[in-house]
Parts: sequence; structure tokens; C-alpha cells
Amino acid sequence: MYKKLMELIEEKKYQQVKRELMEMNEADVAEVLENIDDGATVIKIIRLLPKDLAAEVFSYLRVNTQRNIVETFTERELTKLIEESYFDDVIDLIEEMPASVATKIIKSVGKDKRALINQFLNYPEDSAGSIMTIEYIDLKEDMTVGKAIENIKQLDLDDENINICYVTDATRVLKGVVPLHKLILLDDNVKIGKIMEEETVAINTNETSENCANIFKKYDIVTAPIVDNENRLVGIITIDDIVDVIEQEATEDIQMLAGISPSDEGYLESNAASLAKNRVVWLLVLMVSATLSGMIIREYETLLQSVVVLVAFLPMLMGTGGNSGSQASTLVIRGLALEEIKIVDVLKVLWKEIQVGFLVGITLAVVNFGRIILFEDVETKVAIVVCATLFFTVMIAKMIGGVLPIAAKKLKLDPAIMAAPLISTMSDVLVLLIYLNMAKLLLGI
Amino acid sequence: MYKKLMELIEEKKYQQVKRELMEMNEADVAEVLENIDDGATVIKIIRLLPKDLAAEVFSYLRVNTQRNIVETFTERELTKLIEESYFDDVIDLIEEMPASVATKIIKSVGKDKRALINQFLNYPEDSAGSIMTIEYIDLKEDMTVGKAIENIKQLDLDDENINICYVTDATRVLKGVVPLHKLILLDDNVKIGKIMEEETVAINTNETSENCANIFKKYDIVTAPIVDNENRLVGIITIDDIVDVIEQEATEDIQMLAGISPSDEGYLESNAASLAKNRVVWLLVLMVSATLSGMIIREYETLLQSVVVLVAFLPMLMGTGGNSGSQASTLVIRGLALEEIKIVDVLKVLWKEIQVGFLVGITLAVVNFGRIILFEDVETKVAIVVCATLFFTVMIAKMIGGVLPIAAKKLKLDPAIMAAPLISTMSDVLVLLIYLNMAKLLLGI
Repeated sequence: MYKKLMELIEEKKYQQVKRELMEMNEADVAEVLENIDDGATVIKIIRLLPKDLAAEVFSYLRVNTQRNIVETFTERELTKLIEESYFDDVIDLIEEMPASVATKIIKSVGKDKRALINQFLNYPEDSAGSIMTIEYIDLKEDMTVGKAIENIKQLDLDDENINICYVTDATRVLKGVVPLHKLILLDDNVKIGKIMEEETVAINTNETSENCANIFKKYDIVTAPIVDNENRLVGIITIDDIVDVIEQEATEDIQMLAGISPSDEGYLESNAASLAKNRVVWLLVLMVSATLSGMIIREYETLLQSVVVLVAFLPMLMGTGGNSGSQASTLVIRGLALEEIKIVDVLKVLWKEIQVGFLVGITLAVVNFGRIILFEDVETKVAIVVCATLFFTVMIAKMIGGVLPIAAKKLKLDPAIMAAPLISTMSDVLVLLIYLNMAKLLLGI
Repeated sequence: MYKKLMELIEEKKYQQVKRELMEMNEADVAEVLENIDDGATVIKIIRLLPKDLAAEVFSYLRVNTQRNIVETFTERELTKLIEESYFDDVIDLIEEMPASVATKIIKSVGKDKRALINQFLNYPEDSAGSIMTIEYIDLKEDMTVGKAIENIKQLDLDDENINICYVTDATRVLKGVVPLHKLILLDDNVKIGKIMEEETVAINTNETSENCANIFKKYDIVTAPIVDNENRLVGIITIDDIVDVIEQEATEDIQMLAGISPSDEGYLESNAASLAKNRVVWLLVLMVSATLSGMIIREYETLLQSVVVLVAFLPMLMGTGGNSGSQASTLVIRGLALEEIKIVDVLKVLWKEIQVGFLVGITLAVVNFGRIILFEDVETKVAIVVCATLFFTVMIAKMIGGVLPIAAKKLKLDPAIMAAPLISTMSDVLVLLIYLNMAKLLLGI
């Protein structure tokens, strides 16, 4: 698609490159730049672009590319870039850059904006305050529609934020909202106070971004006003920011489900040491927990020595038990995250898992019994022990997997702690206890 | 929170209940109704509400509650309810109801709408056509701004869809867009053709909803026009529909990561048989694959019989190998889904996993060696075999986990097929081969 463009860049025909890029969507321009391997060329092209386009393209670039640009730009260039950027993008940028680069950015902006930036950086990470934007339409109750429209004309706002106007009093306390299209439909001299609606969903700056997302989903809204503890309007959150939050939350859940400490750094952008750090903690915990299984096995050494074929079924039994349990826990953890399952539903979940465990357990046990009898050279007694273990393990693993995440939530822990790796480790212990005891009993050793 | 309200409902003071509910947000009313156990009471209350509020509340209810209402309502009531609903909500409803209930809904609407509904039901599931809405503003190039505003006044549109107007020609081909706020800012006799902008992002009705979400994220847009193969405008998609798609995609990915066939039915709403069906397939596949591990063990029966303590370390080794591999595959699968990782990045991923595997492998091996020497009563040689196996398994499992999802994508399979359960099963084989061969070599048996 961009082959011709890449050739022009290769040949350093920059004026032609500029003309081509100016016809493209800014997200596509960013994609082209990301495909250039040489950082110096990227900066050369960014410098060629008109300031407003450069700022828009900049906001779509990856963190590493942004960092490269900020470090290379002169203070003057940086000031221009920041001036043309949306305020919430600037905040995001500062938060993602290392301290020295962040300082360079903060230095490049005017005094007023610097104070505001500092105020924003003080909002807790992942709070409503930290993701809101300050670009919105602010009206007063005693304004007329005509005056309001005139005011809006003065502003230079992005259309995504402009479909709802907020009405505040002299102390900036939020009084109500007016959808923008109402302004068009009404007579110029109607007072804003007459047509404004009460805003039922206002979010406090300290609310977590996860809760913001839940509020947006529950009320099916696209914009929400953000207020401080005195109900004064300080910003708005639009649904496009919420999309990022939802995606980020899902990624963190997925990481936890695989026993990885959640991180919002991209995979390719993380260095090996930080990836290793995020993974090693759970592996250590689980490795040490797994020694419990080892202890159980050592208790039954004589049994295993005399019927060593029992060992051959261990991987299958432990694997199936772990998978069964983690299927249940994964579904319940996701259900809790989406608020489809609540703590009070614990008995419903348990009953469902008992039924599912029974159906799945029976199926697996029967299929496995057939397979062993047909294809494996073992005593029928051993096959019975294996398949009975399979059935009971699946049943119990499903129940544990269904209930433990809810128990974790009840104890105010993150339910995702009860993810596949931990459930599998527990299920291993379960398998061994059921398997070895049943073997001892039925085989009479 | 709703305690008083629930008491009023209990006491059948319905007029008072109605007054209270009419003051509340429709999402909150739906929540109250969902908490009433008796279906007949829910219907009684829905019937009390003004028709427009009833329709809005209805759209927030769970599928089972909606079904109950549709089944109980008379055809006349149903017609009213559907008339007051947004068209895309009606389509969703029809798609979620069983055939008999869906037929009842389709019968209750007028002829024109029925034709349109049938057209919508023909769009492939999870396509842009199936999630779009038909309520949008449609302008012509030769209209003046004044005429356009007059036209908009005639429409009765939801504000979420109203911030962008679409310009089409006589054959409904999309010519451009005009942000609503531009209409406010400009003189009444300016022609729409003069101020419209070219729309760079138009989506075909057959595009998958997953691709729609990616387009919304890439271009950071809140609304997109949907066109047919002749570029005629047939609807729009707004970002709130995209939020549902993103959430649904994440849920499906999470299900696949746990070896569950993806389903968009809620956990509590699914019956045990369908939950069991979604889970049993992968469990069977994995159970049968695990017999490969059993075969390897049987090859080494003599070895295990003479050094039965080797068995005691199997759960720990298999668990750690599986977890290491699935950490890597989970991160890569998620990276592929978010398009952060592309097929061409395969070597970068491999190199990263080699480094991470080395760091993590060394750490685990050292910790484990210390633990065995200090706390377990085994020969040093055995400890060396265990820890060397640990190191090599972690290294190789990380490499496999990193590369296989990308290989699956290259082969046009869903990368999520290479999820934790399958990677663990492979890793078991790996562990056994390394462990038993090394033991044979070092212990000289």
C-alpha cells in the first residue's frame, strides 16, 4: 500500500513525500513513520509537516518514537508541538516518558499550563482525574442560546468533545447539561437555565478508571462530567478514553490469568529484564507450592515402585484436572470482571459447576476407559482407578475453580489471583491424593 | 440503596413505585427490575411506565427478562414497545430471542419496518451491517446550512448519533461529512457542498465487527459511516457499539486462552449442557494428547522403578514448564490480537523469549537447587538433573510459547489456539524427554 511512498523516502524526495503525507489520514501517516527504520529520517519528515498535522501524527506514534522525537527537538520546536496537542495527550506523554524527558516537556510549556500539568500529574494513577480532558464547553444558566452559540464559536474544540455542553454556576459547580443539538433547534433568546437537563451521572476525580468504564457501560453514555469533592466541574471523560481503559483492563486480566504481574508496557517495547521480573514471581510461588505434590508422591514411593505404570497416567490426570479447574475459574473471573456474576451468586455458580463437572467428568472418564482398555496393556483395575480419579478430579476441580474466585472477591482480593496456574497447582495435589489413595485401596498394596 | 423502593414493591404500592422510578435513570430502573424475583411483578411495573421510558428500560434488561416480557405482552403492547425502541436494539433483540419469540416481534411491526428488519437479519453475524444503526443525519450537497438545520429539527434523533452529518448524492452514494458543530458556526446560506469534508474512513457492511473495532482504534474516531459495495450509505456505527465488540472480543480471547469454545452467552444464563459442551472438546483433545507423555514414561519404567524419587519432582517440573510456556504464549496472543505484534516480528519475539527464558530459567534453577539441597533428602546428582531440566524446559517452553501463536497466525489459524492448555501439554512431553534422558545419562542407569 505504501510502497511508492517508502521509495520516495528512500530516495530522499522529501517535498514529494510531504505532499503525499498531507493528503493522508494522520493515523496512516503515523503508521508510515513507524515503518521507517532510521530515526533521523522520521524526525526529518516530522519537521517537514505543518505544525498542526505534526502534532496530530505525533499523538499516534509509539512511545519509543515519541521519546526519540522529544529528545531530538529543540525547546522551540517542542513548545510548538505541545501547543498544538490536546491537553490529555500531553499528560499521557509526560506520564510515559522517563523523568529527564518529562522535565524537558514541562519546561517547554508556559507557566499557566505548567501549573495545570502539575495538578494533573497529582491525580492518582488510573483515576478519573488522570484520564479526563479539560477541553469542553462551559455555559452559564443566565446565558441565552444565542450568546452560548457565540461563545462556542470562540472555542476551537475537537468535535468528539463537543456534543454536550455543561452548565456551571459562578463557583464552577455543575448545574446541568445541554446537548449541543438542542442549541441548534431552539430560539436564540431562550435562557440556558430553561433548557438544561439535570446530569445524573457525574464522576469524582478520584474514581478509578475501571469504575468509570463500568459507569459508561451501565448507563450507555458517551461523555461524563468529572467533578471534584465540592461538585465543581474540572473536566470531562469521553468514551474514546474509556475504550483504552477497557482494552487495558482486559489485557491486565489476561496477564493475571496466565500468572504474569500486570504491566501496561507493550510486549515489544519491554526489555527482557522487566518481562522476566513480571513472570518470575508467580513461577517461584507455584514452583514452591508444587513441592507439596512431591511430598505426597514420596509418601507413596513403595506403591509407585510396585505398580510403576501408575506414573504413566500422571501427566494426563494432572493436565486434565488443571485444565478443568482453570476453565471454570477463567469463566467466573471474567464474569466477575464484567459484573455479570456477583458475590451473592456463589451458590448458583457452585450448582452450575457441579452439573457441568458431572457431565464433563463422565464423558472424559468413559472415553478414557475405552481408550485404555483398547490400546493400553494394563490391568482393568488400574483403568478403573485412573478413570474414577479422572471423574472425581474433574468434578472437584470445577467446583474449586468456580468458587475460589468468588471467595477471593469476598475477601477483597483480586479474583484473578485464582487463575489457571494456581488452580492447576491445587488440582495436582487433589489428583495425587485421590489417585494414590484409590490405587492403594483397589490394588490392595 | 434501593431498599425503600423494594419495600414499596413488596407492599404493592405501585403508583408510588411508578413515581419513584420515573425520577431515576433508565439503567438504574432496569437494575431494580432485575432484582425482583417474581416475573409477573416485573411485567406489572413495566406496564405502568410511560411507553418511551418502558422502551428505554427494556433495552437495558437481561435477555431472559426481555424474553419473559415479550412472551407475556399482547401484540398491541409489543408494537408500542418496538415503535419506541431504537432500530439496532430491535435487531439485537430479534437475534437473541428463540425463533418463536422472534417471529412474534417481527409480526408486531409494520410492513416497511419488517422488510428492513429482514434485510438486517441477512447481514452475516458479527459484521458491520449487523451492528450498525440506521438513525443518522443525511444531507445533500446543494442544501444550504439553514435548510440542513431545518431538516435536522424534523428528525428525532438520539444525541449520541447526531454529532456528524453525512452528505449523499441522489443515489445515496456517500460524498462527505459535516461535523454538526460546523453547522452552528456558519452562515445560513452557505451550501453544504462547500463545507463538507471528505470522509476517509468508510466501512463496508461485510467487514467483521472485530475489524471495525480495529479501525475505530487506529483512527481514534467515534462514528463511522457504513456503505454497501456501491459505496451507498446504509447506516452508521457509533463507538458505544464498538465498546461492546471490544468487550466481547476480549471475553472470547479469554475463553480460548482457557481452552473453552468461545460463546457470547452469559455464564449465569447458559445451561449446564451448553457450558459442558463448550468445555469438553478441548479437554478430550488434550487428554488424548497427554497419552504421549504416558508413552514416554512407560519407555523409562525401569529407570523410574530404580530411582522412584525422580517421580516426586514431576509435578513441579511439568507445572513450571507449562506455566512458563503459557506466560509467553498468552502475552504474544494478546499482542497479536491488539495488533501490537505482527507476523514479521517473529524473530524479535524469539530473541526476547530466549533472553527472558535464560533469566527466569537461571533464577528458578538456582532457587530450586538450594531448596532441594537444604530440605530434601536426595543425592546431589538428582538435584542437578532436576535443576538442569528446569532450566532447559523453561528456556524451550518460552521459545515455543512465543513462536507458536505467530506460526498459527501465519497459517491463518486463530493464534489463541496456541493457548495455555495446549502449550502445557507440549511442555509436558518436553519435560519428560529432557528429564528422563538426562537422568539416564547422569545417574548411569
